[in-house]
Amino acid sequence: MQHRSGQIHPSAKKIIARKKNNFNAVHWAHEIKKGNISILAQAITRIESHADEDRKQADQLLKKCYVRSNTTMRLGITGPPGVGKSSFIENLGQSMMQKKSGKLAVLTIDPTSPIQGGSILGDKTRMQTLSSIPDVFIRPSPSGDDDTGGIHLRTREVIQLLEYAGYNYMLIETVGVGQSEYTVKDITDFTVLLIAPGGGDELQGIKRGINEIADLIVVTKDDSGMESAAGLIQTQYQNALKLFHNQTDNANLPDRKVMKCSNLSHKGIDAIVTHLFDLMAISKKLGVWSKKRNLQKKTALHTMVRYLWLKELYSYSSMKELKTIETKVSVSNVTIPELSKAYLRVLRKKLA
Amino acid sequence: MQHRSGQIHPSAKKIIARKKNNFNAVHWAHEIKKGNISILAQAITRIESHADEDRKQADQLLKKCYVRSNTTMRLGITGPPGVGKSSFIENLGQSMMQKKSGKLAVLTIDPTSPIQGGSILGDKTRMQTLSSIPDVFIRPSPSGDDDTGGIHLRTREVIQLLEYAGYNYMLIETVGVGQSEYTVKDITDFTVLLIAPGGGDELQGIKRGINEIADLIVVTKDDSGMESAAGLIQTQYQNALKLFHNQTDNANLPDRKVMKCSNLSHKGIDAIVTHLFDLMAISKKLGVWSKKRNLQKKTALHTMVRYLWLKELYSYSSMKELKTIETKVSVSNVTIPELSKAYLRVLRKKLA
Repeated sequence: MQHRSGQIHPSAKKIIARKKNNFNAVHWAHEIKKGNISILAQAITRIESHADEDRKQADQLLKKCYVRSNTTMRLGITGPPGVGKSSFIENLGQSMMQKKSGKLAVLTIDPTSPIQGGSILGDKTRMQTLSSIPDVFIRPSPSGDDDTGGIHLRTREVIQLLEYAGYNYMLIETVGVGQSEYTVKDITDFTVLLIAPGGGDELQGIKRGINEIADLIVVTKDDSGMESAAGLIQTQYQNALKLFHNQTDNANLPDRKVMKCSNLSHKGIDAIVTHLFDLMAISKKLGVWSKKRNLQKKTALHTMVRYLWLKELYSYSSMKELKTIETKVSVSNVTIPELSKAYLRVLRKKLA
Repeated sequence: MQHRSGQIHPSAKKIIARKKNNFNAVHWAHEIKKGNISILAQAITRIESHADEDRKQADQLLKKCYVRSNTTMRLGITGPPGVGKSSFIENLGQSMMQKKSGKLAVLTIDPTSPIQGGSILGDKTRMQTLSSIPDVFIRPSPSGDDDTGGIHLRTREVIQLLEYAGYNYMLIETVGVGQSEYTVKDITDFTVLLIAPGGGDELQGIKRGINEIADLIVVTKDDSGMESAAGLIQTQYQNALKLFHNQTDNANLPDRKVMKCSNLSHKGIDAIVTHLFDLMAISKKLGVWSKKRNLQKKTALHTMVRYLWLKELYSYSSMKELKTIETKVSVSNVTIPELSKAYLRVLRKKLA
């Protein structure tokens, strides 16, 4: 493997590096298909990495793990902090596994921003029963920045890998509805919006969630002694649904429901699972499902293009040039638009 | 003015167009300086417009309206919907005008998203007394999309124009703290975060606001009969401030305060105004003020660059190319990153 000059040949270097981190796209794809959890976990880490080399490997692997026919169900679980998303998933997952045969994967988006609260350790503890079931895979994912739409682009790729590995039920937990352009609805077939009784002015904050995202609303904390509060909130949201225009991609499906559950007593969970499976069947029958998935591919393309375009702007060399122009902002009366345009001219020349 | 060929000469065409919409940068700048409110209002409309021609005129005008020495005070007023921002501004503005001589401008950012609620018409009615004071200028601004940071970039330019027109106090009202990168703190000297008693889990949602944005917290609704609730919330936030790290650009200023006020009885308003003027004096003395304004210029440059960069991506011709590539996403097993990169290669060539 030694080059004539005594140095290691570049291509040999590549092979050594590859061996070192044990990556081979064909082999990994094969192992993932076979059910090798360890390789699957390592592959997901590559996908979520920001390092260029990892990214390259992830792209190679994803090319090998193309899922042609797709009969999986992807569910988004969202709602404000403290509403009981993790407990709900714990219950929902168990009920799904009892009702249908298959493999279940849970992805929880770990919020990096302090605003969103919620601890992953807490989540894991709460999902104890679910995580002990064979054929259940639970994985917390770091949340990317809104800016790049990074988070769900990566999550989308993780889902692809999981489906290639034979997981046919996906539960994707995200905190809050968010303002980000690319949200959980863009990677799931249905989104369940959780609401808890109490807390006052909830409707205000989640109006957009109801309009554009929720395919099903579930009132949590329908616990013993809390039934009337939960019932009241259910009625409120049922009335709200009549007022709000359904702007989701599933707007052609039958009227959206508001259901109730108790994560403590499991009450209402089975009915929710049945409803979701019914919804899935109708959606497939009407062709809404495949239409939505195709639309999602296009949205993902747009988001990826935007992400890569901004990445060029924020690349090291671009930022260096920007710093140079930045010094002019305080000393001259050239306007900010003028400086910006001057900088973009430089950037364009570099890229050409 | 007729060209030899019988057609109107391009440069004459330009003059006619300019006359038609009555724009002349030098003249307008002069009128604005003189206090012509009508021209000022038209100029702001140009700044907020998305039309290229308006944008060009706005840039020309802003170049003529360069404010060299700056002794103005820019205040951001933010907080969740329903907290009483408009009433607070109504009271604060009146108190400021009583205490100091000068001209006051109020900019309210009109939320375009349904999530944020609040009606401009309602705001205007509520600011009745303030708007009747001479030398007070109130203007609702449309909120841009988070995506481009459009909103506050434009607001920044509107502020420049207002300061050129002799307004030395700026109150900028925005709804919510938001997730957007470029926020009200990036265009103001100080940001006041309003909090109302009641509503439960407030701290959760505005933690980031407290950490990174609030220079002063004001508990509203310290109304007759509500004093104990307001006092409780005040204590909670005072304790919270001890725990949270001050990450604002004004972190070098003395400890942040939590104050109270009643928009109904005007109680506490004068004390808040006095505190804000004191804060301003200290900030200028310590050099924090000028440092922050310089930093803001750089942030504005970065945001503008990003905005223009994305604008190129979203331009009509770019989108046309993207549509072409989009069709491949459903029919082939080429991955989304591959398609994205192919498209960016096309875009780069076009820009070069």
